[in-house]
Amino acid sequence: MIRHIVTFSLSAESAEKRAEQAAWAGEQLISLVPLIPQILALSIVHDVRHEAGNADFALIADYADQAALDAYQVHPDHVRVSSSIKPLVATRLAIDFDV
Amino acid sequence: MIRHIVTFSLSAESAEKRAEQAAWAGEQLISLVPLIPQILALSIVHDVRHEAGNADFALIADYADQAALDAYQVHPDHVRVSSSIKPLVATRLAIDFDV
Repeated sequence: MIRHIVTFSLSAESAEKRAEQAAWAGEQLISLVPLIPQILALSIVHDVRHEAGNADFALIADYADQAALDAYQVHPDHVRVSSSIKPLVATRLAIDFDV
Repeated sequence: MIRHIVTFSLSAESAEKRAEQAAWAGEQLISLVPLIPQILALSIVHDVRHEAGNADFALIADYADQAALDAYQVHPDHVRVSSSIKPLVATRLAIDFDV
């Protein structure tokens, strides 16, 4: 199984705006679960420390294997959601590893 | 409990060099476990997909609460290890959340 963790820091100036955007983006990503069968599990976590160098939120999702993660990445609904989130993002850093 | 995930992308040009550095940095971070009692669990994961926008490795660690994570951050051994890793790093993005 592959775990896909994506950390996002948002570019909005105010913390309130970033929190609002993180909540919206998280809901968009969670809405993919019933649409993309390759998603075995998907959760959104929000940063609680607000330290310099911290992301605003992260996606943590599991897939059976790399082919399933590939299928998720190119799925039209994932492409739609990720392109709607992209303009809000300052830094995105992902990691994919076996679990 | 607080989970602290830190994703690191390294600046070395060659993938081999980055893999070597990620292995070394991971060992340095793992060596902190017996030295810093606030660490409840700590693991290092290495990226398997090498996609653009992916980190090279990540630390995933658990602490009882934010005070314990604070104590970890300022612990002299953590300061020593993180300053030895810092020169290798292109992008670092962390997230801290309740589990």
